[in-house]
Amino acid sequence: MSQVDYIAPKEDHLMPRQLEEEDVNHFKSIVGESGVLTTDIEGYNTDWLGKYKGQSQLVLRPKNTQQISDILKHCNQRKLAVVPQAGNTGLVGGSVPVFDEIVLSTNLMNQIKSFDDVSGTLVCQSGCILEQLNEKVMEHGYIMPLDLAAKGSCQIGGNLATSAGGIRYLRYKSLHANVLGMEFVLPDGTIVDTLKSIRKDNTGYHLPHLMIGSEGTLGIITAVSMSVPSKPKSVNVVYLAVDSFEKIQLIYRAAKLHLGEILSAFEFFDAKCRDLVVKHGANDPLDQPYSFYLVIETHGSEGSHDQDKLSKFFEHVLEEQHATDGTMSTDETQAKALWRMRESISECLRREGGTRLYKYDVSMPLPIMYKLVSDTKERLGSEAQVFGFGHLGDDNLHLNIIIPENQLEMVDLIEPFVYEWTQQHNGSISAEHGVGMMKRDYLKFSQTEQSIQMMRLIKKAIDPNNIMNPYKMFTV
Amino acid sequence: MSQVDYIAPKEDHLMPRQLEEEDVNHFKSIVGESGVLTTDIEGYNTDWLGKYKGQSQLVLRPKNTQQISDILKHCNQRKLAVVPQAGNTGLVGGSVPVFDEIVLSTNLMNQIKSFDDVSGTLVCQSGCILEQLNEKVMEHGYIMPLDLAAKGSCQIGGNLATSAGGIRYLRYKSLHANVLGMEFVLPDGTIVDTLKSIRKDNTGYHLPHLMIGSEGTLGIITAVSMSVPSKPKSVNVVYLAVDSFEKIQLIYRAAKLHLGEILSAFEFFDAKCRDLVVKHGANDPLDQPYSFYLVIETHGSEGSHDQDKLSKFFEHVLEEQHATDGTMSTDETQAKALWRMRESISECLRREGGTRLYKYDVSMPLPIMYKLVSDTKERLGSEAQVFGFGHLGDDNLHLNIIIPENQLEMVDLIEPFVYEWTQQHNGSISAEHGVGMMKRDYLKFSQTEQSIQMMRLIKKAIDPNNIMNPYKMFTV
Repeated sequence: MSQVDYIAPKEDHLMPRQLEEEDVNHFKSIVGESGVLTTDIEGYNTDWLGKYKGQSQLVLRPKNTQQISDILKHCNQRKLAVVPQAGNTGLVGGSVPVFDEIVLSTNLMNQIKSFDDVSGTLVCQSGCILEQLNEKVMEHGYIMPLDLAAKGSCQIGGNLATSAGGIRYLRYKSLHANVLGMEFVLPDGTIVDTLKSIRKDNTGYHLPHLMIGSEGTLGIITAVSMSVPSKPKSVNVVYLAVDSFEKIQLIYRAAKLHLGEILSAFEFFDAKCRDLVVKHGANDPLDQPYSFYLVIETHGSEGSHDQDKLSKFFEHVLEEQHATDGTMSTDETQAKALWRMRESISECLRREGGTRLYKYDVSMPLPIMYKLVSDTKERLGSEAQVFGFGHLGDDNLHLNIIIPENQLEMVDLIEPFVYEWTQQHNGSISAEHGVGMMKRDYLKFSQTEQSIQMMRLIKKAIDPNNIMNPYKMFTV
Repeated sequence: MSQVDYIAPKEDHLMPRQLEEEDVNHFKSIVGESGVLTTDIEGYNTDWLGKYKGQSQLVLRPKNTQQISDILKHCNQRKLAVVPQAGNTGLVGGSVPVFDEIVLSTNLMNQIKSFDDVSGTLVCQSGCILEQLNEKVMEHGYIMPLDLAAKGSCQIGGNLATSAGGIRYLRYKSLHANVLGMEFVLPDGTIVDTLKSIRKDNTGYHLPHLMIGSEGTLGIITAVSMSVPSKPKSVNVVYLAVDSFEKIQLIYRAAKLHLGEILSAFEFFDAKCRDLVVKHGANDPLDQPYSFYLVIETHGSEGSHDQDKLSKFFEHVLEEQHATDGTMSTDETQAKALWRMRESISECLRREGGTRLYKYDVSMPLPIMYKLVSDTKERLGSEAQVFGFGHLGDDNLHLNIIIPENQLEMVDLIEPFVYEWTQQHNGSISAEHGVGMMKRDYLKFSQTEQSIQMMRLIKKAIDPNNIMNPYKMFTV
């Protein structure tokens, strides 16, 4: 569903008031002149893919929690709608306005408050950029528990609000597993502070876990306390070529068995992805094309043990002819080079497809995962380019489609087909990208009416005026 | 706070109606005669420690989700209060009635729905007993991600509702990290079903995570889908004697460094605990008493690698004189024997202390953790017996106190002292036991007024008639 297709139902627009000069002056009194932007704000109105465009007239850039509280208090009293925006790297149109909502950017909320060397506990503001946090904690012998293509510009607050996944999820699990506490501001300006740095706190409802994945519809995350894992002393990658999706599953079982606790990523992509990244300049370490590719990574604390486990695994999958060809890194530089094949897919797709690129992020039981790619290819015919890749160890497929020029109507063949197919196979229509604008009207394919009704009850209790990121996730 | 001290504030008692004969008949029509108990129900009215006693006249034992839905629908219409009860092994009086609430027992909800060998996904009803689930998944090469002293009678639904921790938390993390989906019934009888078996689903609010730790105040968990970890091929234990709490912290750092990804538990207890378990028949593998003891466990996939890591760690801590004495298991039987010293503490305390036993479950930054034990000892004098043990790797201390006979007033020296001390040191007054009745009036020592107010908003939205486990967690 692209921006041009979308017309918000009239009853959606609960906002009775328009932004007035007086409001802007009030915001200036809170964040200062420099914190208020009214011109050159197209970047804030446009999403990363260039598919969703809002008409906001106002961007606010607060520097601290109190300013956010003051802003929201005013917006709530005046019933002015707000879109929280972090790195604006989301893929479902969740972080840009639909109409003229005020954009509240966390760009200036980028202070690291503390890092504890012994426990590995990071406390920081929500606007810190993921890659910079990773560099910071690496200095102390730790890594961030998540890693994704947008790391250079996505912010930890956005990661939390959208429950971002990424390539380390298999090993370090979801943000639910790593968050210790959070500070956030409710729509009425109330600051909720659960920023403890202890590993266990079981007193009352686990509020941070409600905020994780709430996509800015319940409030604005301002700071977080996280437990981060130790930096692995040894990182290794095996790159494999495989000739069928069935064999990939045998390799996955073998990886769990042979690599056990050091397995940190199990990623796949198909021949179509391989051709694309090679076209855009990547070096395939293997000298001929195959049907499927795997990037399997280990994080371990003792290099010799890891190499031993990996060698046995590598020999096993080649001897058993599960894999057709492959190579193994012997140092971290090589490991990074092997990763590049997988990591550059997203950017190459964007360059290749532009606004003709349609991205679907679904999860489903492994055995039938690739059938969605084949079924979609068959349905769309040879003019569409259909790509399959993703976090196989997490049941997570990224189905990407570039539709031919001047054939916009092909979208109707894709949606709701992809969502219906996924629902029929007990999957999720959004494994990690969230709902945002793009999947709002398709939420019913992954959630029952009862679940959605419970979400509405919570939304209404926390945000009775519906000022927080309205028009996203579900209809109020 | 014992049951005798507690008088519920009058305004708490929102229930306008008493149970009538007609209600009981209606319940019989739902669960049958055998599902309705009105006599011999003292066990359901009394908590595990024998401290909290309710006066319920009615216990219901439904067998499936629909029956629970029908029961709650009736209770909600009639405004009859309900206490969900699973294994009734909680330590804060959360699972027994305060007044005459109806007990809704999940004892008969004990069906395993499915287990997937490849992905390690378990789907089961909430009344399944933890140990039985562990045995079941062990047959398939997996283990449950949590393990605690009450495993022989606690139920997975109770574990979820109270966000139980235990000895594997350090490695496999909280239930938030392992739950994939959940089925639960809201107070009005609505069945919310998110029982997917995929590892990622990011569509809408993450409702199961709100239910984890909600202690039966938002609804009743009826089934769960969980990702469970592979059974380690090699389990090893190091048992160490240490002469100061400072040295324990050095050993913890060394364990993280040397054992890395195979570290699965880091538990401690003090000399007082050691004397108690030896008195009750345990065999201390070391032949003389020391100040502190550590039980450090590893779970790994390759025995020779694990032994190598462990030996280096063991040699290191003895050579550096961080540990004074110690022993290491060479097989799983020995590992279990070493665990027994730590695992039998809770049961020995119950036998020794009876109703004079006061249990506190707190967490706080490691460096000051044991000071709470010393400060409490000093405050109470030599007649009180003060024990310190717990999940050190999770910042989690179990402070247990046996007060002398006929000195019940000593409780006033302990509470709120323990809670105030914990608050002053940025800790949590309940690391894993939850709030229940015991800590309801002390919640403010761990949560701000704003957090508690947000909990109330959620409670009111989901349970407007306040029928679900009223009088627990916080005042409505």
